[in-house]
Amino acid sequence: MSERIVVPAREGRAVEVEAGGRFCVVDLEGGQVADTFAFCADDVSEYHSAEHTRVSVDRLFPRPGEHFVTNRRRPILFFEEDATPGIHDMLCAACDPERYEGLGVEGWHASCEENLRKAMAALGHERIEIPQPINLFMNIPVDKNGELGWEPAPTKAGDHVVLRAEMDIVLAVSACPQDIVSINDGNPTPLAIDLL
Amino acid sequence: MSERIVVPAREGRAVEVEAGGRFCVVDLEGGQVADTFAFCADDVSEYHSAEHTRVSVDRLFPRPGEHFVTNRRRPILFFEEDATPGIHDMLCAACDPERYEGLGVEGWHASCEENLRKAMAALGHERIEIPQPINLFMNIPVDKNGELGWEPAPTKAGDHVVLRAEMDIVLAVSACPQDIVSINDGNPTPLAIDLL
Repeated sequence: MSERIVVPAREGRAVEVEAGGRFCVVDLEGGQVADTFAFCADDVSEYHSAEHTRVSVDRLFPRPGEHFVTNRRRPILFFEEDATPGIHDMLCAACDPERYEGLGVEGWHASCEENLRKAMAALGHERIEIPQPINLFMNIPVDKNGELGWEPAPTKAGDHVVLRAEMDIVLAVSACPQDIVSINDGNPTPLAIDLL
Repeated sequence: MSERIVVPAREGRAVEVEAGGRFCVVDLEGGQVADTFAFCADDVSEYHSAEHTRVSVDRLFPRPGEHFVTNRRRPILFFEEDATPGIHDMLCAACDPERYEGLGVEGWHASCEENLRKAMAALGHERIEIPQPINLFMNIPVDKNGELGWEPAPTKAGDHVVLRAEMDIVLAVSACPQDIVSINDGNPTPLAIDLL
């Protein structure tokens, strides 16, 4: 019997997952980027690290059967199943107020950084570093000259990944509110975390 | 009249550079990776960020004429000149004790993380985050499947880059002591920081 946590469009949610716990991150309507973060529950200064994970797997993004590791090179998430077109990003920072300001937005705009901070604070973690996210479903092609593209997420409704916590973690997921750059095709929509 | 700070093989050095200050990072003997870091002098919790810089320049590594930006998306380094074959990395974490343990090394091994911590502590900065480095001269090709290679640095003796500080910074450079993986061709050698 699984428990579903809906992550509303443009918002974030965090939940504790025990070591061995499996969960899905689900794109409910399709075409939506999920900024995903995993912190060590005992010490949130240890967290999943994009740059250590790339070195660990010798690839820009792990494949199913491989691990995401922390900034201390310990396995934190096991990538169990990928029920999507297999396109994800681990190169780009979470969007933040400065990102929207740079894109010409005036006044407040929801951001993955603020979503992460709020979701972690709701569980008592007021002070955190902002890790480089695991941007599930995000389509950032890299060409042979190292140029990055910004394409809409290719996921359909119900596409998902299955991950397993390799230690007690705090999991956070932000339904990316980016509506200026085309990664969500201009239409941010909700996600779900299914605790299996 | 420039001042030269030699960074001995397998060691690190840090120095304060004022806004507008220009400096070279020089590969003295060739084939040597330079893990390079820039922290905001007023607040070392702000530092150059690989993931924000990639978003800023839409590329895996900036070109001359572009900026490295901080984790608050402010320009911190201007990339003025590249007198090398133009191969650099910004994907890989600094080597650390856990990296060498994972590579089968028993006992202590010098690392860029330890070099950075020591060099920063020598200037009074005891507590720092470990940013993902700007790995000057490092040759990590990325193929069309996102697979990373680990190749020797292609620099010759005297090859260098010229950078300009865009705010008051603490600059740190580690002469990467990696001698297991072939990025330094098995022979770590010294670097220099020339303050122009």
